[in-house]
Amino acid sequence: MKEANVMANENEFTKWYIQTIQQGELMDYTPVRGCIAFKPDGYEIWEHIQQEMDRHFKETGHRNAYFPMLIPESFFEKEKDHIEGFSPELPWVTEAAGEVLEERLALRPTSETMIGHLYSNWINSYRDLPLLLNQWSNVFRWEKKTLPFIRTSEFLWQEGHTAHECEEEARQETFQMLEIYKNVIENFLAIPVYDGTKTPSERFAGAVDTFSVEAMMKDGKAVQAGTSHYLGTKFAEAFDIKYLSRENKHSYAHTTSWGTSTRLIGSVIMVHGDDKGLVLPPTIAPVQVVLIPVGPVKKNPQVLEKLEEMFAELKRNGVRVRLDDSDQSPGFKFNKWEQKGAALQIQFGPRDHQNGNFVLKSRDEEDKQTFEITELLSVVEEQLEAMQKRLFQKAKSFRDQNSHLDIDTLEQLKQHIKKSQETDAVPGWILAGWCGAETCEQKIKDETKFTSRNIPFNAITKKSHCISCGEKAAHTVWFARAY
Amino acid sequence: MKEANVMANENEFTKWYIQTIQQGELMDYTPVRGCIAFKPDGYEIWEHIQQEMDRHFKETGHRNAYFPMLIPESFFEKEKDHIEGFSPELPWVTEAAGEVLEERLALRPTSETMIGHLYSNWINSYRDLPLLLNQWSNVFRWEKKTLPFIRTSEFLWQEGHTAHECEEEARQETFQMLEIYKNVIENFLAIPVYDGTKTPSERFAGAVDTFSVEAMMKDGKAVQAGTSHYLGTKFAEAFDIKYLSRENKHSYAHTTSWGTSTRLIGSVIMVHGDDKGLVLPPTIAPVQVVLIPVGPVKKNPQVLEKLEEMFAELKRNGVRVRLDDSDQSPGFKFNKWEQKGAALQIQFGPRDHQNGNFVLKSRDEEDKQTFEITELLSVVEEQLEAMQKRLFQKAKSFRDQNSHLDIDTLEQLKQHIKKSQETDAVPGWILAGWCGAETCEQKIKDETKFTSRNIPFNAITKKSHCISCGEKAAHTVWFARAY
Repeated sequence: MKEANVMANENEFTKWYIQTIQQGELMDYTPVRGCIAFKPDGYEIWEHIQQEMDRHFKETGHRNAYFPMLIPESFFEKEKDHIEGFSPELPWVTEAAGEVLEERLALRPTSETMIGHLYSNWINSYRDLPLLLNQWSNVFRWEKKTLPFIRTSEFLWQEGHTAHECEEEARQETFQMLEIYKNVIENFLAIPVYDGTKTPSERFAGAVDTFSVEAMMKDGKAVQAGTSHYLGTKFAEAFDIKYLSRENKHSYAHTTSWGTSTRLIGSVIMVHGDDKGLVLPPTIAPVQVVLIPVGPVKKNPQVLEKLEEMFAELKRNGVRVRLDDSDQSPGFKFNKWEQKGAALQIQFGPRDHQNGNFVLKSRDEEDKQTFEITELLSVVEEQLEAMQKRLFQKAKSFRDQNSHLDIDTLEQLKQHIKKSQETDAVPGWILAGWCGAETCEQKIKDETKFTSRNIPFNAITKKSHCISCGEKAAHTVWFARAY
Repeated sequence: MKEANVMANENEFTKWYIQTIQQGELMDYTPVRGCIAFKPDGYEIWEHIQQEMDRHFKETGHRNAYFPMLIPESFFEKEKDHIEGFSPELPWVTEAAGEVLEERLALRPTSETMIGHLYSNWINSYRDLPLLLNQWSNVFRWEKKTLPFIRTSEFLWQEGHTAHECEEEARQETFQMLEIYKNVIENFLAIPVYDGTKTPSERFAGAVDTFSVEAMMKDGKAVQAGTSHYLGTKFAEAFDIKYLSRENKHSYAHTTSWGTSTRLIGSVIMVHGDDKGLVLPPTIAPVQVVLIPVGPVKKNPQVLEKLEEMFAELKRNGVRVRLDDSDQSPGFKFNKWEQKGAALQIQFGPRDHQNGNFVLKSRDEEDKQTFEITELLSVVEEQLEAMQKRLFQKAKSFRDQNSHLDIDTLEQLKQHIKKSQETDAVPGWILAGWCGAETCEQKIKDETKFTSRNIPFNAITKKSHCISCGEKAAHTVWFARAY
C-alpha cells in the first residue's frame, strides 16, 4: 500500500483501516449487526484513555455514577427535539421474562432523560448544586452505515451530566470539559484538534449550544472527537429539575452534558497508522517496548538471560514491556510487532551482548540506533517521550498542510476537490465564511459532501463572505467531509 | 432499631437495609422495574472493588475485553442446559430503528454463548491457549423479586472466560479465581466466606462443576458472593471451540467462567451495617476520615485553619478525607457521617487546638480517643488498619457463632428455627450430612426454606448421615436460607 493512494481513495482507505485494526488484533466482527468485540489490545487502549480522562474528571470535582440502561419511551417524549433526533436510531425492548411489556424500553443512546428524571428528585436547593456526575457505560445507536470503533450499533463512552444555578456557571462547565478533552486528545493521544462551536444544524438534539473538538484523519476526513453541550433549562423544564435559590425562589437548573467514546480508538488508528500497521502513542500502546532476540540465540543462552534481566528492569519501572522468545524468526517478529504497534523494538543478539549494546527502533522511524545496555531505562523513557512528541508534531503538520484557508467560493471548493482527486492528494478541510443560513450549509453539503465541523474559537483568519451565497459572513467555519 | 429484633424479623431487616442504603445515599429507585441508579457513593464502592479485583486478575495473566451486549436467540439454543436456566429471565430486543428484527436479541444475562462463538474463531492451535479474558459490564436478569444491589434487573459485574488445553489446567483456573475472590472478599471487604462446591441443583446452567464463596449476612441468610465454573467441553462442543493440539489432533478446549457482581455492595452493607447506618471497611469507604469542627469555631478562625492543614496533610498522603465546614451543627454532622459510613470522625475545637490534640472516633466503636496532632497521619493509618481488622473479626465471630454443627435431623432443624424465632435470634447456617439425592435437598427446602449453599472444601467436621433421609451421607453441606 502506498500512503498517497490510500489517502486519496475512500474505499482503499477503509480497506486499509479495517485490515490494520484486524491484523493489529484490536477487534473482531460479530454476528450482531454493527456490534464489534473489543479484543484485549483494543480494550486496553480504551482502559488507558479511561484512566486519563477519569483522572481529569475527578480532579475537577466530578464523581462517577451509574444509571439504568433501559429508558421508558415516555421519557423521550418529554423533550421534543431530543426524541426527534434520536428516535430513528433506537433499539427497543418489548418483551421480558416471557411477557410483553406495557411500555417499550429503549436501549439508551444517551442518558439526559433518565438522568433528568433522577436529578429532579436529587436537586431541591441551591445547596445541592452544582451536581457534577459522570457515567462510563455502553450506549446504542442503530445506524445504517457502521465502521468499527468509529460508528457502531453498541459503543462504550463516558457521558458527563451536570446541573448548575445559572447559565454562566453551566457554560463555564461546558468549556472546562471541552478543554479537558482537547488536553487529553492532544497530549495523550497525540491528535491535534480544532475546538469550536457547532452550527445549529449539527447541534446535539436538545442542546442550546454544542461545542466540539474536531480531528483530521489521514484521509483528510474529520472525526468529531468530543462534544460538550450547554442544555440551558430545556431538560430541566422537561423533567422539572427545580431548586430553591439563594433568594428563596423556585428556579430551573441549567444543565450540561459532554461525552467522548471509543471512536477515539478509531481516530488514533486513522491519524497515526501507516502502511505497516498500527502506530500507537506510547501513552496508550499496550506494548511500549518489545524485546526481540536476534542471531544464533540457542548457542548463546546468555543472550536470553540478559534479555530477561532487561525485561525485569523495565517492568519493575512501570514500562509495558514484552519479551518475544517464541520460536518464530526475528524477521517475522519485527513485522508482527510493527503491525501491532509496539512503540519501541529492542533487538539484541550475541554480538550486542558482547559489546554491551542494544539496537533500538522506534515504530515511527526508519533508522535503528545503538545504545549501551547500562542506559536501558533512561534510553527507553527518553525514546518513548520523544516518539510521543514526534507523533503529535507529524499529525499537526499533516493537519496544518491540509487545512486550506484560501477557498472562498463553492466553485473554488469544487475545483480543489477535483484537483485533489487528480493528484492523489487528500482534499482536507477548508476554513470558509458562512452567512448563517441553513440553506447555504445544505447547499455546500449537497454539492461537495463537505459539512460544517465547527466555528473555531480561535480562527486562524476571519472570512468576510459566505462561501455559498457570497453574502456577508456571520461566521468563519471549518468545513470538511466527516465520519 | 434494636439489632436483635431486626435480625430475627425478615421484614424489619429488609426495611432496615433499604433505609440504610437510601439514607447512606448509595442508590435510588428508578421507574424501570428492578433497575436502580448507583449514586456516587454507591458507585465509588464498586470502583474500589473493581480496582482490587482487576489488579488480581491482571497479576494472574488475565486481560480485559468487551463483547456485544446483544445476543442472538439462536446462540442460546446451542447449549440446552444454558437456555433452560436463563430463558425465563431474558429481556428481548425485537425492534430497532423502526423495523422488526428478523431474530430476537437477548440482553446478556451472561456471555458464555457470545464469547463461545468468538473463541471458536480466535482459537486454532494450542499456541492460542490458555486464553484468559475478563469483561466488566452490565448484565440483565428480569427476576420477579428484586432487592437493591442484591438482585436487580440490571446489574454490573465482571465475568471471566478462559479456555485451556486440558481439564486439569481448566480446573486449576477455576480454583485460582475462587481463591482470588475469597482473598478480596475477606481481606478487602472484611467478609469471611466459606468456599466449596455447589450441589448439582445449584450449579450454573451449563456447568460441569460450580464452586462458590458464601457469606453470612446479619440476618443469618446467605449470599453467594462469587462463583467459578468448570464448564468442561460443553460450551466448546456447542460453539465448536477446537484447537490443534501438541499431538496434532483436533481437540475441544476446556473452558471456565467466573463472576462477581455489584451484589458485593449489598453484602458489605448487610454484613457490617448497624442501627446508625452504613459501616464500611476503610478499604472501600468513600470517606475514610471526616474532619468536623466543634465548639465556638467562628470566634476561633485558627481552628478552621488548622483543620485545613490536617485535611491537606491527609489528602497529600492518599487518605480519602473530607472537611465538613458546612453551617450545620456538630451533632447533625456526627449523625450524618455515621449514617454515611465515614470510617473515622475527627472532632476538633478551640480547646483541642490549644492542647495540640484531636479527638477521634472509629465508626465501629463507642468510645472516642484523644491523640496529638503531630501524630495525625500515623494515627489515621493505624486506626484505619485496626478498624479493617476489627470488622473482619466481628463478622467472623458472628458467622462462627451462627454456624451450627450439631443439627442432624430435619426435626432438629425445625426446632432450631422455631427456637430462633422465639428468642429473637437468627437461625444462621447448619452444617449437615446429605446423601446426594435431589429429593432430599428439595424436602429440606420445602419444609424449612433452607437450601444447600455449598459442600465446603474444608468442612469443620464430617457428617455421617443425611439430615433428610437418615441414610449414609455422601457429603457434608452448608444449608441456609439464602438471598
